[in-house]
Amino acid sequence: MEIAILTFDQFNEMDSFVVAHLLNRLSPQGWHAYITAPSDRVTSRNGVAVDAQRPLEFTATADAVVVGSGWLTQEIAQDTALLGRIALDPQRQLIASQCSGALILARLGLLAGQPVCTDQFTRQAIARTGAQVLDTPFHARGNLATAGGCLSSQYIATWMIARRLGLAEAEKVIRLVAPVGEVAGYVDRALQAVRPFVANAPVNSAA
Amino acid sequence: MEIAILTFDQFNEMDSFVVAHLLNRLSPQGWHAYITAPSDRVTSRNGVAVDAQRPLEFTATADAVVVGSGWLTQEIAQDTALLGRIALDPQRQLIASQCSGALILARLGLLAGQPVCTDQFTRQAIARTGAQVLDTPFHARGNLATAGGCLSSQYIATWMIARRLGLAEAEKVIRLVAPVGEVAGYVDRALQAVRPFVANAPVNSAA
Repeated sequence: MEIAILTFDQFNEMDSFVVAHLLNRLSPQGWHAYITAPSDRVTSRNGVAVDAQRPLEFTATADAVVVGSGWLTQEIAQDTALLGRIALDPQRQLIASQCSGALILARLGLLAGQPVCTDQFTRQAIARTGAQVLDTPFHARGNLATAGGCLSSQYIATWMIARRLGLAEAEKVIRLVAPVGEVAGYVDRALQAVRPFVANAPVNSAA
Repeated sequence: MEIAILTFDQFNEMDSFVVAHLLNRLSPQGWHAYITAPSDRVTSRNGVAVDAQRPLEFTATADAVVVGSGWLTQEIAQDTALLGRIALDPQRQLIASQCSGALILARLGLLAGQPVCTDQFTRQAIARTGAQVLDTPFHARGNLATAGGCLSSQYIATWMIARRLGLAEAEKVIRLVAPVGEVAGYVDRALQAVRPFVANAPVNSAA
């Protein structure tokens, strides 16, 4: 399972690294999430310079794609040359956006008729595309998901793992990263957020 | 308020970037958190190569220090040359460790007589130092704090902001990053985690 975490200049560190870290917890099972960027290096909104692990063209072969967010998403969603390097196929891939990343999925025509989760600052821009904006952290229809609020990135990871390996495997990963003493609450919220959207997921853990 | 986020090779991305991101939400108020490393570049446990924003010697002038965690913390805690570059002063600085970072604070003699929060994999190593290991996500005594579980990094940020600017300002930051629709719960847990340890914090927001 190869996952592209789309990460652009001025990116939000939480939105790219939380989901990447959670998915990479399954590296013993062959899951690998990569910081995937339009150039060799990208710099976060707080000046953290990171080497890209994969170019945007990696999306063409990735099994799943997470579109991260950042301060430049509105501009990126208008950059047709850059968008042309992103190859998404919701028939084959699991695809999710984090916060303003929904603007890119909308621009690519992937959210038509689908309610959208996003952050409080992106709500209006999403609403202008004609989409319904939800007051919940996570929503998916088929293979396309959206999440809103930096810390809802944990729900994107939960959903992707649950879709491919089942809810029990997703729960194991959340247990590993929850604050000590708060594991039950974190597991409950994560499973509750994604359960309506994993009806066809494996019932039993793959482990 | 200049904050060093100590980040070593094979670091845990969540443990360094969640707290750095949250503290940098106060950049308009002059707060700046920096990835602080022993070399010009460090590479995470999942292969993400990041430029250091500050060298370890930055700790000598920083107003606060967070010791991140990673796969090499046990080795780092034995590296006297490297530890010699870290200058911590709990009289002047707010100091916190995330997960295995507590091993470094313990090695520097800063946790004597203080119960410790850490992750499930570091418990035994901390216990061998003679310290009591807690089953809670966050604990502080004076200016020294420890946290356990990747996502308890949000409580380190909450505590540092509350100690310097008050609980109301800390709450504002948590509101900005909580999953949409789950803000109240995230705020409640964050304030509950740190409230016992910010008795002398400003009552009113500085904003």
